[in-house]
Amino acid sequence: MPVAGNVAIIGSAATRFGVHHDRGYLDLLKEAATGAIADAGLESAQVDAAWLGTAHPELVSLQGDSGTAVTEVLGFAPKPVTRVSAYCATGMEAVRGAALGIASGEYDYVLAVGAEKMRDVAPRESLVARVANQTHPTLAKGRSGPGQFALLATRYLNDFGRSRDDMAAIAVKNHEHASRNPIAQYDQPVTREQVLAAPMVADPLGLLDCTPTTDGAAAVILTSVQRARTLGRPYAILDGVGFAVVDGYYATLYNPDNDYLGFRSTREAARIAYAQAGIENPREELDMVECHDCFTITEIINYEDLGLAPRGEGWRLLAEGATTVGGDIPVNLSGGLQSCGHPIGATGVRVVKEIADQVTGRAGPRQVDGARRGLAHTLGGPGVLSSVMVLSRGEA
Amino acid sequence: MPVAGNVAIIGSAATRFGVHHDRGYLDLLKEAATGAIADAGLESAQVDAAWLGTAHPELVSLQGDSGTAVTEVLGFAPKPVTRVSAYCATGMEAVRGAALGIASGEYDYVLAVGAEKMRDVAPRESLVARVANQTHPTLAKGRSGPGQFALLATRYLNDFGRSRDDMAAIAVKNHEHASRNPIAQYDQPVTREQVLAAPMVADPLGLLDCTPTTDGAAAVILTSVQRARTLGRPYAILDGVGFAVVDGYYATLYNPDNDYLGFRSTREAARIAYAQAGIENPREELDMVECHDCFTITEIINYEDLGLAPRGEGWRLLAEGATTVGGDIPVNLSGGLQSCGHPIGATGVRVVKEIADQVTGRAGPRQVDGARRGLAHTLGGPGVLSSVMVLSRGEA
Repeated sequence: MPVAGNVAIIGSAATRFGVHHDRGYLDLLKEAATGAIADAGLESAQVDAAWLGTAHPELVSLQGDSGTAVTEVLGFAPKPVTRVSAYCATGMEAVRGAALGIASGEYDYVLAVGAEKMRDVAPRESLVARVANQTHPTLAKGRSGPGQFALLATRYLNDFGRSRDDMAAIAVKNHEHASRNPIAQYDQPVTREQVLAAPMVADPLGLLDCTPTTDGAAAVILTSVQRARTLGRPYAILDGVGFAVVDGYYATLYNPDNDYLGFRSTREAARIAYAQAGIENPREELDMVECHDCFTITEIINYEDLGLAPRGEGWRLLAEGATTVGGDIPVNLSGGLQSCGHPIGATGVRVVKEIADQVTGRAGPRQVDGARRGLAHTLGGPGVLSSVMVLSRGEA
Repeated sequence: MPVAGNVAIIGSAATRFGVHHDRGYLDLLKEAATGAIADAGLESAQVDAAWLGTAHPELVSLQGDSGTAVTEVLGFAPKPVTRVSAYCATGMEAVRGAALGIASGEYDYVLAVGAEKMRDVAPRESLVARVANQTHPTLAKGRSGPGQFALLATRYLNDFGRSRDDMAAIAVKNHEHASRNPIAQYDQPVTREQVLAAPMVADPLGLLDCTPTTDGAAAVILTSVQRARTLGRPYAILDGVGFAVVDGYYATLYNPDNDYLGFRSTREAARIAYAQAGIENPREELDMVECHDCFTITEIINYEDLGLAPRGEGWRLLAEGATTVGGDIPVNLSGGLQSCGHPIGATGVRVVKEIADQVTGRAGPRQVDGARRGLAHTLGGPGVLSSVMVLSRGEA
């Protein structure tokens, strides 16, 4: 059976996102995985298979470069555990793999877990430093994440006559949202003035325009909608699943089709997910969105790529308060990557968990009244790939 | 629908395995991927999704650490490409992921491709050196591949009263087999004397007891058996697919259940694959096997773990000539990892291709007359995970 409409999420858990010098990769993985299994009302013996998303095993002595880490923390032998990676969409790839496992009928209950431990390395061994030290002729020429997204910010502000204030408003909103999220890395509000005065990282992106680096793990449990219906409680249905890979990692910025104002990967993934979910007007039909605010400019551009606003008018959605808590389509109620934090492999699972929790009425202080349907999105690499999932409430 | 019995392989291709200083990772990937698509009689536009297996992107400036490399070489945008890794079973994980994609009904035609470029680095940047340089408390203590498998060889030879001659016979057989394989890295025969006189790597494993490091890529195309039946030519059916992960990477050698005489992962994976395929006596019911001869001792132990011989008697299978070309169950007619070579992510796809080619009568000078059913196996990490697939001939 196809994934869309037939696969359900029935349990979830996440660690606190932040800096865990006192806990290792396996500790975080175990907390999320066992938490999700318990949340689904299962024992680990009832889970048939797992998908693990970890993007950068080289940061933790290669832990997470296969699925064995899940086996070790769960005592899961001899069951299959598949490790996937897809840059910042790694976690959503774990969810998608698990969904295919359910859709095939091969497995009854599947765990999708994402984990990343990014803070146990010295700066010169950090992800940014490691990538910059690669010998590839373009990657080694200063193409850091902030540097790449600064190009988009520069063009966006120029072409549409906007200013750093528009980006700062995203940071202010997401930090405010994070104050309602007990797992958030940065749960204190920031002011517009603080954002604008923060040290510049890659002009026009300052420190508070950027996502932090983070340790954390998140997990969800999947089963068929048919089986979820028998559990006696609400669950989340995967109404639409789009995963679009649009270019080679090294080619994108030099692709003549790239206008530096948006990401084709997000538009293609959303097109697929919306078609599967039967969504024609996402602004009206979605109750909330978790999208990939790796930088403040990215969230504005996501609004446009996801069809929530016309090109060049994403900033307006924010200015009108539509995407702030209490607005008609709140975005990143979790605090987003910027404030909840961004442990790369965990993020994609965490955003799916957030929307699943919302549509099942379990989002606690972040709950949107009457939430029925929401969207989870992650964007990977220099925009070369995106994952979009639409989740809706399923009744017992 | 479940994978077993419902998923078919309808095309395959591989590059020459060896040292390709004149060709990059993307060149090899492209040759295998486009070759398999053409071999299946398809255009790349007809392929709906892809799975990429690459185990060590850090050897090639992170190429292959997501699926974007496939997108780039095939012009595959915006289709989904999933990257998986599972140590030396990485390629078979790509095939298994692709099979789940077909089994779910989500996709009609899927590409599984594995690629690894291991020889473009200086020795101090090689895979072995990189692993040894990790800071993990056990991995950094000299646990190289040869060192780990030498422990098994030592115990096997001691407990069963065998000698290095038994292992040398594997090397002699596989080098002889490779002379019939046009893609093999080492296609010249070696003598018992040469094997025994080769420099010692990790006693009792000499240089010719070890797999080389290799550049290469291999690819297969999957579809449903229902669709394959309409193509008017033989195809290979996945009769059984077992993937077993039995321990954490770092824990295995210290696991009190490890007797150093075999691998639980292989036994569990084979158990699942045989059950799905309805195989009760593999020695009688399989026409040929490709198994993971990362070291000569491993092939002998594989015979036993795969149920082809009782514990402690794998060497006898070889001594009797059963596993040599012309024997009743030839093993590693390709030359195996030792002589065909071992580009890690490519190997698992290559072994599936080899068996698919055999059961469809396309194995050229290596063809086993009347081949109907065979087995492909890879073993990963320090034996912590294994993949076993049984493939049989499907008629149009």
